[in-house]
Amino acid sequence: MGFTTEDEIRVQGYRLADELMGTVDFGSMFYLLVTGRLPGHGEAVLFNAVLVALADHGLTPSALAARLTYTGAPEAVQGAVAAGVLGAGSVFLGVFEDTGRMLRASGEEAPHDEAEVRRRAKRIVDEYRAAGKRLPGIGHPIHKSGDPRTARLLELAREHGTVGPHIQLMLAVQQEAAASASVPLPLNAGGMCGAVLCDLGIDTSVLRGVAVVSRAAGVVGHLAEEARAPIGRSLWTLAEDAVEYRPLR
Amino acid sequence: MGFTTEDEIRVQGYRLADELMGTVDFGSMFYLLVTGRLPGHGEAVLFNAVLVALADHGLTPSALAARLTYTGAPEAVQGAVAAGVLGAGSVFLGVFEDTGRMLRASGEEAPHDEAEVRRRAKRIVDEYRAAGKRLPGIGHPIHKSGDPRTARLLELAREHGTVGPHIQLMLAVQQEAAASASVPLPLNAGGMCGAVLCDLGIDTSVLRGVAVVSRAAGVVGHLAEEARAPIGRSLWTLAEDAVEYRPLR
Amino acid sequence: MGFTTEDEIRVQGYRLADELMGTVDFGSMFYLLVTGRLPGHGEAVLFNAVLVALADHGLTPSALAARLTYTGAPEAVQGAVAAGVLGAGSVFLGVFEDTGRMLRASGEEAPHDEAEVRRRAKRIVDEYRAAGKRLPGIGHPIHKSGDPRTARLLELAREHGTVGPHIQLMLAVQQEAAASASVPLPLNAGGMCGAVLCDLGIDTSVLRGVAVVSRAAGVVGHLAEEARAPIGRSLWTLAEDAVEYRPLR
Amino acid sequence: MGFTTEDEIRVQGYRLADELMGTVDFGSMFYLLVTGRLPGHGEAVLFNAVLVALADHGLTPSALAARLTYTGAPEAVQGAVAAGVLGAGSVFLGVFEDTGRMLRASGEEAPHDEAEVRRRAKRIVDEYRAAGKRLPGIGHPIHKSGDPRTARLLELAREHGTVGPHIQLMLAVQQEAAASASVPLPLNAGGMCGAVLCDLGIDTSVLRGVAVVSRAAGVVGHLAEEARAPIGRSLWTLAEDAVEYRPLR
Repeated sequence: MGFTTEDEIRVQGYRLADELMGTVDFGSMFYLLVTGRLPGHGEAVLFNAVLVALADHGLTPSALAARLTYTGAPEAVQGAVAAGVLGAGSVFLGVFEDTGRMLRASGEEAPHDEAEVRRRAKRIVDEYRAAGKRLPGIGHPIHKSGDPRTARLLELAREHGTVGPHIQLMLAVQQEAAASASVPLPLNAGGMCGAVLCDLGIDTSVLRGVAVVSRAAGVVGHLAEEARAPIGRSLWTLAEDAVEYRPLR
Repeated sequence: MGFTTEDEIRVQGYRLADELMGTVDFGSMFYLLVTGRLPGHGEAVLFNAVLVALADHGLTPSALAARLTYTGAPEAVQGAVAAGVLGAGSVFLGVFEDTGRMLRASGEEAPHDEAEVRRRAKRIVDEYRAAGKRLPGIGHPIHKSGDPRTARLLELAREHGTVGPHIQLMLAVQQEAAASASVPLPLNAGGMCGAVLCDLGIDTSVLRGVAVVSRAAGVVGHLAEEARAPIGRSLWTLAEDAVEYRPLR
Repeated sequence: MGFTTEDEIRVQGYRLADELMGTVDFGSMFYLLVTGRLPGHGEAVLFNAVLVALADHGLTPSALAARLTYTGAPEAVQGAVAAGVLGAGSVFLGVFEDTGRMLRASGEEAPHDEAEVRRRAKRIVDEYRAAGKRLPGIGHPIHKSGDPRTARLLELAREHGTVGPHIQLMLAVQQEAAASASVPLPLNAGGMCGAVLCDLGIDTSVLRGVAVVSRAAGVVGHLAEEARAPIGRSLWTLAEDAVEYRPLR
Repeated sequence: MGFTTEDEIRVQGYRLADELMGTVDFGSMFYLLVTGRLPGHGEAVLFNAVLVALADHGLTPSALAARLTYTGAPEAVQGAVAAGVLGAGSVFLGVFEDTGRMLRASGEEAPHDEAEVRRRAKRIVDEYRAAGKRLPGIGHPIHKSGDPRTARLLELAREHGTVGPHIQLMLAVQQEAAASASVPLPLNAGGMCGAVLCDLGIDTSVLRGVAVVSRAAGVVGHLAEEARAPIGRSLWTLAEDAVEYRPLR
């Protein structure tokens, strides 16, 4: 993606020092690295908003794993960050890829009109229900009346004109699913972020990678806190006290 | 650092959806997560510039490790990102902490005047030379006449008024070291980034962590490229062909 | 799994110092940790043989990723080992779980006679072919006339009386598949190891974990060699020279 | 270390299938991979005993980090294993390298007689005390009257004739240190394992790597238990309840 001579460093064709540093924010640089082009203003706002939305969720398993790793190896911060992102798997972050795959499988070309969007959404919901599969990006255990991040992303996308076919389809899928459900089925942040990233042109194969970088920033925040006020050893004691062992023998 | 209720999500005291998303860029969010406060405008520019500067360096060992990991486990992108950041150790990224420790060890209080800055710099250079230790942040194998990123960061820091005691001391250390050396000893990007981050108030314990997040973005860029145009298997063949094995037995 | 008092350390109920150290080999200890009981003699031979079989495969992507990580962070060997095992994903090591799942899905109870084994094998082959899925554990790009590890494991299992329903079914699946194929379809080492581990009572969820520990030993072997005679930096140069970059811009 | 043809696979010069599988245990294979030669009988007993000794320590930070990672990414067991070994850093596992470096720095040649061993030990203890440094491998927070693993390793080394200059020196260092101390200073398991591995010819650079593979086996044991009876989510709740957050703002 880049190369270096004695006088200059280029990344994706741009002169790093003159054209990128001080000119673009880190989110836009990340977008450049992943897509090969700099984002337009609206794209930069949305991409940054997604990265901001996903960075921290409090003392999640990821944050705990990172802090516990730091307890044993404070001299190798990179290892604690790695441990923190390794939990970014199917359970919590699979939603991005699942959403991306669902939205992108519905047709190569953008739908012509709203009626077609609704037809595609209905077909998706019917297929998932027939197969007994959970619709990705729909439903939330806590934010039952709607995730505040979802609403904000939609607002930003409308404001900046970046509502594309994937967001449209995602919204239609949610409406279709919610219409025939007995429990609240809001569009959750994972689903909305996935749709936004699809409209921004991020490949399905790295949707989760975008979230991982966001989480890495959150993890470093936790490590900074852990360095100031460690909780790793308390967690250890806590776990040993709380878990009553039933040895197998 | 954050918590969640049914209606809102707070991070470092801010309402995530209303106060951060769409308002701050990802670099500023990262700064908030690490330091507990939002950066001022100049601080945001400099922090983002450091993150932009360090994100990619072409096909480094980190990028190669990530791509090779992706070859075996494309379904677990988080593992490839983790492999990519695990090489961010003493050889390539130790310079941040070493620089931070050197600069911060020279005195709690900011120096009163330029003469004191020079005295401190001379003391540091003398101590390192007496101990036969390499000065961190000084010298570069390729950019002998000066790393373009270093010059750009200094320019930005001056423009935005964020030149603090650490940058001042680092510059003085470089001058002192170069004055008595027979080879060019420019201030390299690692040393300059370390000084900038110290002036921005980043704790020494997470200086490397900041660089790791920047690298993670670069690694995801490489993985996006690897997904489109894989080189992992060619690297494998290349390595097997190139390395002649001398079995020990 | 274990606990510690001032006088003793117990693991899975055994006194570590008196009952395990010097009494059981590391492979048997690993078996104890995973299953909760010590293996019988034949089980220990087979479990160790599987671990020996999978430990090294030369300069694989895993070994390369570990060596490249060591190049950047030689002070954090644990990070290089971690990078080495992170490539143990679906492409190279998924075969264990896939095989285990295939064999275990064919029926809770062991088949009564050989005819039933053949019927189950036929059903499996038919199902996979109908679904257009590749049979796990069958076929090999290099060892077309049979993987020497497969033959050796079968020989050992017969010699030690540990041929159980999973090995029987796996052999029958291979015969059934090969009978109607135009290319050689030997039972490969991954498939045989998976079947052996199933007969040894290893849970499907940790089949890959067993292989990962074996690989970790191989990775440490590579790191020992890398410390003596480094190739990491040559790989870097090699990659930069070999890969012609086509920047996206 | 190895290579493959259509008919055979060789590792460190041995034919994998015929000469190693079923013949050597996994511990001996690991020794072969790291040192390039198969261990003698006594060496195999001691190397295995060290691997057995270090494999599990109950719900340590490593085990917890692995389980929490598995909670988020159960489909990528290799990531959970990696997270588990990443905490194997300076705090818990640095003792191996520190011990190895201390013992090996005391002289290239083996000491001629016991008096010289005592002189070297005294010099080491004096140097460490003068520098205010902690002696590695000495002292234990729980096993104050002696770690049962240390005694067992010594017994095995004596029984199998593998007591070499490093064990001798380590014992003398402990005696010298304890003689002039007001608190009990037993030789701990880390120090003893380090000395045993030095006498077995393991390079200092991979001493920690040996321990990491042992830990990896313990981690997979924990993951097997986690798959059967998960505690990851309880740990999450436990941590959120127990840690009272003091946001910085």
